Amino acid sequence: MLQERTGPLAPYTVVDLTRVLSGPYCTMLLADLGARVIKVEQPGAGDDARAIGPFVDGSSAYFMSVNRNKESIALDLKRAEDRALFEALLDRADVLVENFRPGTMDRLGYGWDSVHARWPRLVMTSISGFGQTGPYSRQPAYDMVVQAMGGLMSVTGQPGGPPTRVGTSIGDLGAGLYAAVGTQAALLQRERDGLGQQVDVAMLDCQVALLENAIARFGADGRMPGPLGSRHPSIAPFDVFRAADGWFVIAAGSEAAFQKLCEVLELPALASDARFVSNALRCEHHVALKDALEARLAAHDCAHWRALLQEHGIPTGAYNTVAEVMQDPQVHARDMLLPVRAGDEAGTALTVAGNPVKIGAHGTRLHREPPRLDQDRASILAALDAR
Amino acid sequence: MLQERTGPLAPYTVVDLTRVLSGPYCTMLLADLGARVIKVEQPGAGDDARAIGPFVDGSSAYFMSVNRNKESIALDLKRAEDRALFEALLDRADVLVENFRPGTMDRLGYGWDSVHARWPRLVMTSISGFGQTGPYSRQPAYDMVVQAMGGLMSVTGQPGGPPTRVGTSIGDLGAGLYAAVGTQAALLQRERDGLGQQVDVAMLDCQVALLENAIARFGADGRMPGPLGSRHPSIAPFDVFRAADGWFVIAAGSEAAFQKLCEVLELPALASDARFVSNALRCEHHVALKDALEARLAAHDCAHWRALLQEHGIPTGAYNTVAEVMQDPQVHARDMLLPVRAGDEAGTALTVAGNPVKIGAHGTRLHREPPRLDQDRASILAALDAR
Repeated sequence: MLQERTGPLAPYTVVDLTRVLSGPYCTMLLADLGARVIKVEQPGAGDDARAIGPFVDGSSAYFMSVNRNKESIALDLKRAEDRALFEALLDRADVLVENFRPGTMDRLGYGWDSVHARWPRLVMTSISGFGQTGPYSRQPAYDMVVQAMGGLMSVTGQPGGPPTRVGTSIGDLGAGLYAAVGTQAALLQRERDGLGQQVDVAMLDCQVALLENAIARFGADGRMPGPLGSRHPSIAPFDVFRAADGWFVIAAGSEAAFQKLCEVLELPALASDARFVSNALRCEHHVALKDALEARLAAHDCAHWRALLQEHGIPTGAYNTVAEVMQDPQVHARDMLLPVRAGDEAGTALTVAGNPVKIGAHGTRLHREPPRLDQDRASILAALDAR
Repeated sequence: MLQERTGPLAPYTVVDLTRVLSGPYCTMLLADLGARVIKVEQPGAGDDARAIGPFVDGSSAYFMSVNRNKESIALDLKRAEDRALFEALLDRADVLVENFRPGTMDRLGYGWDSVHARWPRLVMTSISGFGQTGPYSRQPAYDMVVQAMGGLMSVTGQPGGPPTRVGTSIGDLGAGLYAAVGTQAALLQRERDGLGQQVDVAMLDCQVALLENAIARFGADGRMPGPLGSRHPSIAPFDVFRAADGWFVIAAGSEAAFQKLCEVLELPALASDARFVSNALRCEHHVALKDALEARLAAHDCAHWRALLQEHGIPTGAYNTVAEVMQDPQVHARDMLLPVRAGDEAGTALTVAGNPVKIGAHGTRLHREPPRLDQDRASILAALDAR
């Protein structure tokens, strides 16, 4: 059942011109925290994500996964009548978010300088592949492009193996997160000086920011970071290990944890092996260490070993499929799965991820189903007239 | 040269009990935006990250990469005298951030209920592996554990290949980002009601939130998402391709882009091939499509093809190593690399990632070098007395 729109951002209205993923992820974060988000879409097709499959009763699962808690109105920003409506929305908005390629908003007459001159209190958040400045600014980009250009792909995968992408669109989602951080910072500043600011977030910049350890390691020792499979670059044993029936994680991050691990696995020889007496040596001999551990782990299944390690306080984790994640009791206890329905509560439910930002009693909340294109036109226009 | 501490969060003071990565990443985001961050460390060893190599002139590169713009004071929260100093810091703070295992703050006497009773305006942000609630709450976790448990590892890697970790600590960094979002939302709410809130962020929840498309796809079509190497799950050609001298990205996300690509590569037969006439068919026949494209791409090097594709507006990107990222002109133009020095400006410079949140003229700024343990004790105590 739909809940009331409440939360820390409840007084704020966001006009949302974003499409596909990075921008919609940013505005979903704001909407989940209670902001009123008015999604302005192209008449006809709407957000490009509406065309991306798979579909649930004709509605895009991709679209539904990042557009809950938003209203939709279709406006053609090249038509005078629709521009007037759009501007009436900006008159009462706190934030404008867009993820067009740099230059597009200027051509529409809504570049930062024009917007700021007319709506000085409005925060304008722009997400783009490369940012509003710099030599690549006007080039097109997608998640795949920035994952590769930003170096994240070069450290993901198996050593010597083919290029490997992070299995989620971290190029888009990362940018959406930093943009939400920037948008709120600008709102906090506006509380003091009454002025909106331009927030300029580049997907490529965000990939570089997420690389951070790899950059620092390279800077410190000059060794080029590369893909390491599933192991940690500087701690061992800290990896995914094979047991009788599959894989699971052992993360023995300290000397004490390694000693305890050897004891619990009944491998006393390992604990005193000269190759494994320090973390640095264990990292150097990580292949031999993994072989020795897996020779023992083959005797029992993952559940056996995980229970044993947990009992002794050694950090361990399941190597879960998406289906297993969706059945995990902790994931349920944290309210991290949310059924949504296209347009209204009459549709078929699709499960999407909930809101991980828990503030007081405010967590995952659904105050609107993912909207059908232009679904909220009447109520949005009525509110404008009523003002 | 160090700059003045300015920015949208300049009026806010953050008391920072965090160690290693998720918490320090959160407080670095706040510090980069101008907040005063006072890092409270254990006397003796300080933040555990100080012991993680590689080292630059004896200082941890790992520590330096996420602790710029912070002050340090060493306090033992089990000693009465130090507790009094800690409480004096909280008297004038806006935010307390911690990433201990749930229960630790209660044992120290600084659980949420006690903190809120004594400092009602204080926002308290807690980052933990599994959250403050739920059956796994008290279990230990690290990045590796939540990457595996949250399902992200199950969709990263080569099809049929061994488990593959995302090459950066996205379990920690993701949690740090959502925690920064939650902290600022709580500050915005406090502007209205004057009350601090508890922000409870679980690393596992954040992994689930970052999975989002995989959950929605599975929910919609019941096909278990798995690792796909470097290709996109539902768009083709959208992948890393091999040319004569290496790999690069082609991201032809639309029908028009695919037609243009075939034209530019002089592959007219491909454009009309029955296997490739729609995105759905291209996804189905992605192996044949990649083979056909790579047969042609072998004729020239990456630079040749990337220039050609760029000329025709087809999204493309380099498959960069970390060293190449650090030489990229756009990365430099966006001020995304920052030299930092342990303690003061006399040390050896280490390059770390800059701040991707550009707000007006506020971008990457260095107002303090990563601190030596307890470096700021005298000035912090003097300010307390002066009050």
